[in-house]
Amino acid sequence: MPTKVSRADGFLSSSTTLSTAETPDPDAFLEKRSASSAFSVEHVPLTTLPDWQLDDRLQHASGRFFSVEGLSIHTDFGPVPQWRQPIIVQPEIGILGILVKRINGVYHFLMQAKMEPGNSNLVQYAATVQATPSNYQRVHGGRSTPYLEYFQEHAGRRIVFDQLLSEHASWYLHKRNRNMIVEISEDEDIAPSDDFTWLTLGQLRHQLAQGNRVNMNARTVLSGISYTAEDDPDSYGDIPDAFHRQAVESHATGRSNADVMAATTWLIDQKAKFSLDVRRISLRDMDEWVCGEDSIRHREGRYFQIVGLSVAATSREVGTWWQPMLEPAGGNVVALICQRRAGALHFLVQAMIQPGLTDRMELAATVQLTPGSYRGPDEVPPLAEYLDAPESWIRLKTVQSEDGGRFSRADTTHVVVDVPEGHTVNAPDNYRWMPLGLLNRLIHSGYYVNVEARSLLACLL
Amino acid sequence: MPTKVSRADGFLSSSTTLSTAETPDPDAFLEKRSASSAFSVEHVPLTTLPDWQLDDRLQHASGRFFSVEGLSIHTDFGPVPQWRQPIIVQPEIGILGILVKRINGVYHFLMQAKMEPGNSNLVQYAATVQATPSNYQRVHGGRSTPYLEYFQEHAGRRIVFDQLLSEHASWYLHKRNRNMIVEISEDEDIAPSDDFTWLTLGQLRHQLAQGNRVNMNARTVLSGISYTAEDDPDSYGDIPDAFHRQAVESHATGRSNADVMAATTWLIDQKAKFSLDVRRISLRDMDEWVCGEDSIRHREGRYFQIVGLSVAATSREVGTWWQPMLEPAGGNVVALICQRRAGALHFLVQAMIQPGLTDRMELAATVQLTPGSYRGPDEVPPLAEYLDAPESWIRLKTVQSEDGGRFSRADTTHVVVDVPEGHTVNAPDNYRWMPLGLLNRLIHSGYYVNVEARSLLACLL
Repeated sequence: MPTKVSRADGFLSSSTTLSTAETPDPDAFLEKRSASSAFSVEHVPLTTLPDWQLDDRLQHASGRFFSVEGLSIHTDFGPVPQWRQPIIVQPEIGILGILVKRINGVYHFLMQAKMEPGNSNLVQYAATVQATPSNYQRVHGGRSTPYLEYFQEHAGRRIVFDQLLSEHASWYLHKRNRNMIVEISEDEDIAPSDDFTWLTLGQLRHQLAQGNRVNMNARTVLSGISYTAEDDPDSYGDIPDAFHRQAVESHATGRSNADVMAATTWLIDQKAKFSLDVRRISLRDMDEWVCGEDSIRHREGRYFQIVGLSVAATSREVGTWWQPMLEPAGGNVVALICQRRAGALHFLVQAMIQPGLTDRMELAATVQLTPGSYRGPDEVPPLAEYLDAPESWIRLKTVQSEDGGRFSRADTTHVVVDVPEGHTVNAPDNYRWMPLGLLNRLIHSGYYVNVEARSLLACLL
Repeated sequence: MPTKVSRADGFLSSSTTLSTAETPDPDAFLEKRSASSAFSVEHVPLTTLPDWQLDDRLQHASGRFFSVEGLSIHTDFGPVPQWRQPIIVQPEIGILGILVKRINGVYHFLMQAKMEPGNSNLVQYAATVQATPSNYQRVHGGRSTPYLEYFQEHAGRRIVFDQLLSEHASWYLHKRNRNMIVEISEDEDIAPSDDFTWLTLGQLRHQLAQGNRVNMNARTVLSGISYTAEDDPDSYGDIPDAFHRQAVESHATGRSNADVMAATTWLIDQKAKFSLDVRRISLRDMDEWVCGEDSIRHREGRYFQIVGLSVAATSREVGTWWQPMLEPAGGNVVALICQRRAGALHFLVQAMIQPGLTDRMELAATVQLTPGSYRGPDEVPPLAEYLDAPESWIRLKTVQSEDGGRFSRADTTHVVVDVPEGHTVNAPDNYRWMPLGLLNRLIHSGYYVNVEARSLLACLL
């Protein structure tokens, strides 16, 4: 039921509201939408994908959508100084947008039940709009994108959040999407069509806690949300869960301009210490990779492979289509260590170089574990031992899907480890403790927090 | 003489102070330093540069400093959809830092008289520190960099400005430097060595107005300065020059978070409209360019050429050296149109794609004219006709050098055209009026204002 709410309230009252007259049972809605459509997703040989050509690069005959190319990387960050790998190149800027509306004073989020062929649960909650120019200009001749106009013709609307943010920078080269939250007024009526529903932030938080129910693109948009001046600090005491209360308090911490300036100066120090040089090359010039009929894969089966998928669906823009997908080796984990410091919950982030980042380095979670990439134990990243922390320290452990439109079977375990106040974490120099309020301000500033960390931060709302 | 100054004053009192007991006559100091050293700068064939190798790229035997490579560009911005060109690749982050100190309450800037072989006036005022890691790690075995420690070990110091900003994005690929202003306390003594002197902002402003006396790297750092809350608006009336007074008032305008958010949303709209795809290629794969013994040049002599320089000097880190330089075709102009709108001076900027920009598009001046690049009148950019505006509209017209450490004989005429209030400027959609306060906040936010525009903005302090 709604807690006490005033007109000036921000997102906190939505976070503590678990049901309203305007929202369905979120589990039941998702199950119903899943059951309403039939999908078949099948692996097919890469070279049989209609309209896709594999040569120096893998690309669509139209020149649109995306291509897969080779990348040569040199860096002094991390244990491996140089390597070559395939990478997805998609220069266009997609829109990831969520419409919000106060209903009886409580923010509601217009979410879409959306099928993506790579997801473990095929149908998950997605943002109101999730579309690339190739989609919404209908290169495939598909259906129009509902609600797109709210994000393209936004003059006069209240824009809560609008920023270009990075995507998976081990798999994408310089990819960024526009993350938006746009508010419509209380008296503006929207009748959600079949696949759409209003949900509160509390309902989304519970969906996130279950795992594989809120898709990657929705999670990165949600990471733009914070609890700040618009929310009443006196109401923090009403939050039943102690860790949730601390997370909310942490959102109100570290938000000053001086905090942001100190953090960015530290990050520039880190950027100046490490170098990254990337160069696009032919797929044929990667000794350790095989371009075969079936797939593009590493000789030792490490990292990931590029496979072909055939998808038949009744609930997406196009009924049937074929596309390449990136399928990672399993076991990926993203983990944040947190600790109560100086009266507020702080999270240990690291400044990390990734080959596809637009500005080379962003903040990442404490541990970003990709077991399929390591040749031996000396390549395992620092602090990975905290993944075996005592059960009593674990505040969150769920499995979430990466973007199921490009990545197949890409499940990442999300973990939050809350270490006791007296405990000392021995982190390298490129690690720093930050409260959630500071991390949120950095997310609002652009290319500062990578998508893996943002995904985890969305689970901490 | 100093105007009335309080402890809380910002940069405005420094801007209106044209002499102090601690500062020399700026013209005389620069002339004296110029006369104290002998330099010889000579063009030599590119292939005779010791330690430089010309093959698929032009690079130093150490692998340090920088390289010149080929770049293949595709874009839907501007009249030319695709081309190939040489470009300088220098992944390391240089430090451009100015030390400031309040002396009797007035900010003083520690400036360096520095010789750079490409400058039209060889010796100009430079930032306190202007150094790449290749410099200060002494790859050439040169002298140590004075005052470097103030910018590298900045813990506990007051950092007035610290941001990674882009460099010339038609000539450099993804190059960025760290622009810093660090304040030392009034009781911290620095005895400036021979090439260094304290100057007020007013003295620098007059040096800027003369042209070719304040180098490019100093100008980009100075563009981080603004007149804001710390300055007393009541003192604006004391500023003798009417246009200077309007510029100072414009600095106090458009600084709110809402102003910044509206501007960045507009810029993201522009980024989403245009695409840019760049790919590094071999210098040998550029049909329109000739890699000769003497130089790398365009077949029709357009754009620029890469030449060799031999430099003998007694006042730089190394006594004698050789290096490649980029020498542009002449006649470059950068111009801002301004107009009094809604009570404050606004400047017409454009969102512009340039091949070397880290995030592809930044704000540029109203007109960025590079005559050596146009095949015909249809390639001349919009609003260039304002360069022939009536003399009474011209508020500033000076010639400034581009970075004389990389660019040879690269003089750019800087122009500000003040159009009357009733006049209508017909600008394309990717142009927008902004006050100086907003532009300054965007400069503080990172990759938003390109270096050509920042150079011009520094002349408007």
